[in-house]
Amino acid sequence: MIKDVLEKEYFQVVKGGITYPKGIKAAGVKCGIRFNKKDLTLIYSEKVADAWGTFTTNKFKAAPLIVTKKNLSESKGKLQAILINSGIANACTGEKGLKDAWETVNYVSEGLKIDKKYVAVTSTGKIGEFLPLKKIKTGLKEAISKLSTSGGTEAAEAILTTDTKKKEIAVNFKLSEKEVKIGGMAKGSGMIHPNMATMLGFITSDISIKGELLQEALKQVVEKTFNMISVDGDTSTNDMVLFITNGLAGNKIVDKKDADYYKFLEALQYVAKYLARCIAKDGEGATKMIEVEVQNAVSFGEAKKVAKAVINSPLVKTAIFGKDPNWGRILAAVGYSGAEVMPDKVDLYLKEKIVEDGQPLKFSKRAIHKYLKLSDEIKILVDLKMGKESAIAWGCDLTYDYVKINIKYN
Amino acid sequence: MIKDVLEKEYFQVVKGGITYPKGIKAAGVKCGIRFNKKDLTLIYSEKVADAWGTFTTNKFKAAPLIVTKKNLSESKGKLQAILINSGIANACTGEKGLKDAWETVNYVSEGLKIDKKYVAVTSTGKIGEFLPLKKIKTGLKEAISKLSTSGGTEAAEAILTTDTKKKEIAVNFKLSEKEVKIGGMAKGSGMIHPNMATMLGFITSDISIKGELLQEALKQVVEKTFNMISVDGDTSTNDMVLFITNGLAGNKIVDKKDADYYKFLEALQYVAKYLARCIAKDGEGATKMIEVEVQNAVSFGEAKKVAKAVINSPLVKTAIFGKDPNWGRILAAVGYSGAEVMPDKVDLYLKEKIVEDGQPLKFSKRAIHKYLKLSDEIKILVDLKMGKESAIAWGCDLTYDYVKINIKYN
Repeated sequence: MIKDVLEKEYFQVVKGGITYPKGIKAAGVKCGIRFNKKDLTLIYSEKVADAWGTFTTNKFKAAPLIVTKKNLSESKGKLQAILINSGIANACTGEKGLKDAWETVNYVSEGLKIDKKYVAVTSTGKIGEFLPLKKIKTGLKEAISKLSTSGGTEAAEAILTTDTKKKEIAVNFKLSEKEVKIGGMAKGSGMIHPNMATMLGFITSDISIKGELLQEALKQVVEKTFNMISVDGDTSTNDMVLFITNGLAGNKIVDKKDADYYKFLEALQYVAKYLARCIAKDGEGATKMIEVEVQNAVSFGEAKKVAKAVINSPLVKTAIFGKDPNWGRILAAVGYSGAEVMPDKVDLYLKEKIVEDGQPLKFSKRAIHKYLKLSDEIKILVDLKMGKESAIAWGCDLTYDYVKINIKYN
Repeated sequence: MIKDVLEKEYFQVVKGGITYPKGIKAAGVKCGIRFNKKDLTLIYSEKVADAWGTFTTNKFKAAPLIVTKKNLSESKGKLQAILINSGIANACTGEKGLKDAWETVNYVSEGLKIDKKYVAVTSTGKIGEFLPLKKIKTGLKEAISKLSTSGGTEAAEAILTTDTKKKEIAVNFKLSEKEVKIGGMAKGSGMIHPNMATMLGFITSDISIKGELLQEALKQVVEKTFNMISVDGDTSTNDMVLFITNGLAGNKIVDKKDADYYKFLEALQYVAKYLARCIAKDGEGATKMIEVEVQNAVSFGEAKKVAKAVINSPLVKTAIFGKDPNWGRILAAVGYSGAEVMPDKVDLYLKEKIVEDGQPLKFSKRAIHKYLKLSDEIKILVDLKMGKESAIAWGCDLTYDYVKINIKYN
């Protein structure tokens, strides 16, 4: 990753997270939903920010998502505060759940003295349980009093559930002689695919950019990053990615697809990709991250189908855990992916080329076994040799610990 | 199951397998591909039989499937012999693999003195390796010499790979005062979904039935049985179901959809369902079979989507292994299945009704936990309350042993 960054001279990765951009404050506190752990995060922008969100495609949408979508539509894509609680998802909670979510919006609006429509709320945790409103109200007061430009890390901690590590990043770059900043944090885990362990991503910035361009950039970036660690439709009731920018960097507004736009796009992509990879790496019970790159497909969609089939194959995932260069399982997943492939053309690389034109080459099992043993990040490359498009998906291995974490009777 | 059978007075389940119908002989021998295990099966019908086959949708089709499809087309749906080897799949073996498969057809044709086009061949086991032709030639000679009407059980043993049990069944019923017989055997395992551990099914009969009716019956039955233990497209390189009937029962030919047809259809469905359930039960590392029934969908296709999503969810599978009545994971799978569902209408039963109209009911976790602990077959019922169609899918839990079996470095 570091090499990657050094090559891109124009932007810098620095220590920090969502409070890195100008005018963004945050706090993470313990409100008492989770036992002795931070469980309530508040993000606040001094100035009303342009906002964009993407939400789970699961038919069972959690109450806070419905509320946040409504507010984003009401405010025509503006937000000033985001409240996130962990421990309880407020999903499958019916009318009462919806009412509760609106109630938390009221708390934030009153506490910060901002318009209700500028408030987003989101929840992650157990489903089928109601929010403890009193605890949230009390916790929120504390969070408001603690809002600070150095609160990013505590905020990133308070959104976690089964995650083992906080996930945050900050970058900066220059546009029209002004320093523009982007910060981000995420939570994930449960990574066979993120169907129940909710994936949340929050990205903040101070860039000044035209709304339509922002939307286009975010859509494109999310599609190639956060969406590549989850199967289409295989989403939790609470998945959500939110982006806000308050324009305080003071750059000349980005209003067309010029060099400035592409600088922003690339930095944003870097941030989102970093967070997505962190989520894959921190999959439940994972010992290794797996990256599947599919090259030379006829379209991005076809490349994605193949990459997703391989990254989600339990047999590929267990083989990687077992340090087994089992190319047959990878080819089988390519074959059942639903994508058009020509079996007699497919090449496969695992450290080196091990399959050519659909048939195994002679290779040293021992050498590949060693690679699988010693590397924390395993790269599988599938070359379809049919077109020019490619896609990359991220996931992790399937281990005893995954089973252990998920069988817990509760 | 037994109760099920007793209610259907018109057909009887008896001890036996593929050699139960008149004029069907078989043998299972050790030819030396697998270490000290039977690995070569030959099935032979005294009379050229009407045949029907269905094959994997995987783009990487193994050589024997290509050869068998070709022969079935050449012979216009007739077969007299089926050769099956376990241990090596002859998949991803290119031109040589194809030539080898044809060579085994020649061996059978010469050994039994039958037309080449009446020979089917199939393989299951490791992919990317070539067939040991000499061993097969020698083993085949032994198999031919041992062909017998009591060879069904040895035949059922010789097709297994990671399976822990042989899977066979025989039934009989009367049509126009004649006894009609059906026999079957299968192999499976690897049941997160059968993508690499090949699923093979062989059903034999002596019924006399018109070709088109036979095809229609088989298509319908396979769709609701064998295809309900595998995700669409999630198939191995070698999956295959073959059916043959030689007409020796002497019944008045079934040539329209009368009572006789439906008797055959139901008995056939029973045989296929029994074999499919055996495969699910014998999933790698499985401690429990899971049956997911989806009721009141708008179409069979929609019901199937939901049933498949639930049966394939690693989180549902681990929850069942952990005896955890985790209704949230089941609802989440329903929600991301891609089917049209109305979240506020969905009911869910796990022993008893535990979710109504998309929200949890008060239920005794302890009682359901006990059910999950004591039962070998777990039934999940999802009522969509939208239409009148239903579907049933079978699978198994996800356990430490699944991981153990599949990480083996080889």
